[in-house]
Amino acid sequence: MNSFIYDIPTKVYFGAGQLAHLGEELSNYGKNVLVCYGGGSIKKSGLYDQVIAEIRRAGLTAFELSGIAPNPRVTSVNEGAAICKRERIDVILAVGGGSVIDCAKFVSVAAFYDGDAWDIMEHKYEPTKALPLLDISTISATGSDMDAGGVISNEATQEKIGFSIPGLLQPKVSFLDPTLTYSVSQRQTACGSADILSHIIETYFVPEDGSMFLLDRFKEGLMQTVVRYAPIAMEEPENYEARANLQWAASWAINGFTSALQNVAWTCHPIEHELSAIYDITHGLGLAIITPKWMKYILDEKTVGRFYDYGVHVFGIDGTQAPMDVAKQAIAATERFFYETLGLASTLSAIGIDDQHFALMAKRACGGDVLPGFRPLQQADVEEILRMSL
Amino acid sequence: MNSFIYDIPTKVYFGAGQLAHLGEELSNYGKNVLVCYGGGSIKKSGLYDQVIAEIRRAGLTAFELSGIAPNPRVTSVNEGAAICKRERIDVILAVGGGSVIDCAKFVSVAAFYDGDAWDIMEHKYEPTKALPLLDISTISATGSDMDAGGVISNEATQEKIGFSIPGLLQPKVSFLDPTLTYSVSQRQTACGSADILSHIIETYFVPEDGSMFLLDRFKEGLMQTVVRYAPIAMEEPENYEARANLQWAASWAINGFTSALQNVAWTCHPIEHELSAIYDITHGLGLAIITPKWMKYILDEKTVGRFYDYGVHVFGIDGTQAPMDVAKQAIAATERFFYETLGLASTLSAIGIDDQHFALMAKRACGGDVLPGFRPLQQADVEEILRMSL
Repeated sequence: MNSFIYDIPTKVYFGAGQLAHLGEELSNYGKNVLVCYGGGSIKKSGLYDQVIAEIRRAGLTAFELSGIAPNPRVTSVNEGAAICKRERIDVILAVGGGSVIDCAKFVSVAAFYDGDAWDIMEHKYEPTKALPLLDISTISATGSDMDAGGVISNEATQEKIGFSIPGLLQPKVSFLDPTLTYSVSQRQTACGSADILSHIIETYFVPEDGSMFLLDRFKEGLMQTVVRYAPIAMEEPENYEARANLQWAASWAINGFTSALQNVAWTCHPIEHELSAIYDITHGLGLAIITPKWMKYILDEKTVGRFYDYGVHVFGIDGTQAPMDVAKQAIAATERFFYETLGLASTLSAIGIDDQHFALMAKRACGGDVLPGFRPLQQADVEEILRMSL
Repeated sequence: MNSFIYDIPTKVYFGAGQLAHLGEELSNYGKNVLVCYGGGSIKKSGLYDQVIAEIRRAGLTAFELSGIAPNPRVTSVNEGAAICKRERIDVILAVGGGSVIDCAKFVSVAAFYDGDAWDIMEHKYEPTKALPLLDISTISATGSDMDAGGVISNEATQEKIGFSIPGLLQPKVSFLDPTLTYSVSQRQTACGSADILSHIIETYFVPEDGSMFLLDRFKEGLMQTVVRYAPIAMEEPENYEARANLQWAASWAINGFTSALQNVAWTCHPIEHELSAIYDITHGLGLAIITPKWMKYILDEKTVGRFYDYGVHVFGIDGTQAPMDVAKQAIAATERFFYETLGLASTLSAIGIDDQHFALMAKRACGGDVLPGFRPLQQADVEEILRMSL
């Protein structure tokens, strides 16, 4: 068991009606607020008007960075950083899903750098300060609202890179109002739930010394929550219980609590990032396609114990059977969840992706060397997993 | 499901050897350090010398408040507050168990008040600021290392009162090194484990709208952790896995995460506090005696569902039986855990307590009115539970 530092300082207002605290919280950090959002769905829903009204009521001034795309681009980051400098922004408010929050995080550090924000990805500039960031999360998926990381894409280079700066990028305050996720479509609810489940799988499938009993049980509880409530939220979009459980699970799947002690890196996320860097597909969908193939590829006598626990504790599979049988049933249950319950595509070819970039994607996923994880993968392994996903 | 504010800012260094970061963390808060500790066990273990060495290495100056008793007294708080004022203390370091940390928390606010610290308990002074508090926890029990509360006794009035000031009293940084709990005796390990389990029971046994699926599963994971590792830690005091799981469970049992959403108060703790206010018994022992009797007293058709989940998910009781049968077996399993596995006394008479103060204790526990909880209790109910505990 490794030692670790636990440091998750984000304050969370959870529940319906909590936006009433927005003005008082923003006021703690200054007067000029940069409101970051995406394609305008928050205008349709009325959330935009509510946010602006709260900002005005608190006597603050709102500036805007809009049009942040899913798989957010570094061009948006540069645009946001320029506004911060020009308008002397004191505090950033991200209103939207993970893409908007990720972009805003990156803006919060790029605001103190005069070059291209992509330089930060290439470690030409190491951020040491950030503008305070608050957020209102509108979809249960990436859980960007309590963690220090994000993902930014560069269209010019077809790269999509994750970043994490603990101590600097965690939002100061997050507003999680499950009613704001009522309008998330059935399909986006499915993709978001796949993303949450994948985050937990990445930290659950680790060698035994990479976790602890207490955290394993918590991760199983998180996975049970997703398996139970995702289909309910898809069928009954205004089911508060379902939306609330998914939203809190999304945050805790990735805020750092579950990955404490871990000595291995994630596997499916790096592979998927290469996919969506080239094809711009929804992150959760890519993960749903790849994860079960990865599971099949790494299942062996050494890894079977973890799959056994997963099957018994998450899907309630009869544990009196042989471990390898339980493991295979657990993978089949995962497939049923992704492809039948959530209704997501099960192959890359079903979403129009062929094998032409597999070699490049595999190479990038491995960083030119090896992709560490529960079972470390070479480029050839990743290519095989992609081929299994065709 | 209620709305809630989640705010647990404490940074935790978890694991063997993390004390190497003590100097750098203390330095963030100032130069004059008040080291608070108890009866000297940290001198025997060598921890005291290590702490003083780290403080000196960082160029800081150590002052001392020693002799803090189990069930800490307000007299210690007043003494500590006087040192803070006289020596211009910048930061407080509590080294010890829950009693030491609780006392240090109260000192951190009393340092800004010129009267008797007990006035704070009686709301004659409402603290608005506190000296920063860091701690090194040496026993897995109260989990005072991540929460905003504590308990202080007043010998003069035979009162023992809990306090909680969220936003003010959470430690800034906690050091949880499981190896520092190796020297905790078998008996103290038992009492501490009973305390942890009781904290979770207090937040688990609530009406359905007082919790959420995700948190229920987490609480069950916490309870499983205690049930599994307490006996291992008692048999093998230097089992790192057992000590680490108990220590992290102790923090998460009470840091506020599990009680988010709750709309009911604790029951067994207020009753036990009246017991130990008069008899000065170990808190966890008192809880172990009272909790199963309280369970029997409140079990009925309305509450049986919670007991059923508890029995099936924590003790693995066969869920195909009638819920009331499962519930009774769950209470019996709880008794076996407290009285056989942990080896604690099962009755008050076994520890020399008779019924002479029951009426007073019941009255105080109810605050003169009703003790809220899963099932609200009148004074007569509390007296009956105490009588069942004889």
